[in-house]
Amino acid sequence: MPDKHLSSEFDAELGAISNRVMEMGGLVEAQLAQAMYALSHFSQETASQVLERELVVNRMELEIDRDLSGVIARRQPTARDLRLLIAVSKTIANLERVGDEAARIARTVQQLMKAGLSTRMRLPVADLAYEAELAMASLRKALDAFARLDTARALEVLKQDDQIDQEFDGLLRKLITYMMEDPRTISASIDLVFVAKAIERVGDHAKNLAEVIIYVVKGTDVRHAPMEAVEDAVR
Amino acid sequence: MPDKHLSSEFDAELGAISNRVMEMGGLVEAQLAQAMYALSHFSQETASQVLERELVVNRMELEIDRDLSGVIARRQPTARDLRLLIAVSKTIANLERVGDEAARIARTVQQLMKAGLSTRMRLPVADLAYEAELAMASLRKALDAFARLDTARALEVLKQDDQIDQEFDGLLRKLITYMMEDPRTISASIDLVFVAKAIERVGDHAKNLAEVIIYVVKGTDVRHAPMEAVEDAVR
Repeated sequence: MPDKHLSSEFDAELGAISNRVMEMGGLVEAQLAQAMYALSHFSQETASQVLERELVVNRMELEIDRDLSGVIARRQPTARDLRLLIAVSKTIANLERVGDEAARIARTVQQLMKAGLSTRMRLPVADLAYEAELAMASLRKALDAFARLDTARALEVLKQDDQIDQEFDGLLRKLITYMMEDPRTISASIDLVFVAKAIERVGDHAKNLAEVIIYVVKGTDVRHAPMEAVEDAVR
Repeated sequence: MPDKHLSSEFDAELGAISNRVMEMGGLVEAQLAQAMYALSHFSQETASQVLERELVVNRMELEIDRDLSGVIARRQPTARDLRLLIAVSKTIANLERVGDEAARIARTVQQLMKAGLSTRMRLPVADLAYEAELAMASLRKALDAFARLDTARALEVLKQDDQIDQEFDGLLRKLITYMMEDPRTISASIDLVFVAKAIERVGDHAKNLAEVIIYVVKGTDVRHAPMEAVEDAVR
């Protein structure tokens, strides 16, 4: 067992890692907002920025994971602390995937622009923006819950996921209608279907984050559990 | 440091967990094969079986993760052993996601049947089956590499991923052509786009498994690394 002195050093190291995680979270949040801006303004420049930022996010994931391994090797943490360190590793894996989704959206923007998107085409930009707002709100809430180890907030994230899924279903139906009305828009519409899917998956990643937080604080693995069981665990 | 006796008990526990992981791998492999069968034969019964099996796979993930936590708590493993235990946790997370993709395909089959799929519609079933064959071969190879901690095999998995991606791109183009030729098939075709995407993601999960194996054996984190760097790490 580490003595008091070692333990406070451990806390300091953990605090530093936690700050890096929040920094990474802020980065992917901004990346996603930029990707949505690139889509609504057809900005080649912003799309490129999102893709450059992906490299930074990927590197951060590797660095934080390396720091975690270092702490584990040096401190031989207790089982409880270890649970926290593994949770951090899962958290950054999820954040990296959010960065992937943002990059996917940015690449779609580039593709649409290269294909010379017809101005006659109706784009459900407002709907996509709304879906993205919901997903970003979930992500922000999950990061907030992580920073404070706040399970009540984590629970809110889990409860909001249905709303994002419904928004995605509505968007899909709308895009199918557009395609049927004007088959020339099919190819571009499929691209937008994948954008809608990428946003929906950001919601899933936020949900994964929330489940990790509940596990760390309560010790209960709530993945795949019905909502009442999750509420019981958090209570 | 654990003494020899503890260490051999640790090995036995690890061996038991490893067997469970292989069992889980076999289960998701079969689940995916069943999902593809349900699609090509429009079998409601097989689709239901896939969905039932998802619950089993989800439970296995939770159980193996709990076993891992138990080993960590009891054995206070060294940093090196811990790397292995964390790798197993990442492996089963990936396998569970393969199960999710299979379930997604099964739900799509149910949806297509409920919508009373027009017999006039051309289905690129052969192409989807071929894409699935590639993805399943990658998954099998990754599981094999896991069982033997064989980095050469893991490297092969990484190299094959491009082929699956190309197959997906070809399928997408074909489906877009079908939709343009007969807009009445748009809704069903979109469902098949998601099936093709689910299969492509199975390839991604196999790739993630392969990266974890290289990390465990070589200690090098090859995520996001260019192929030459990965080859150097494995050599």
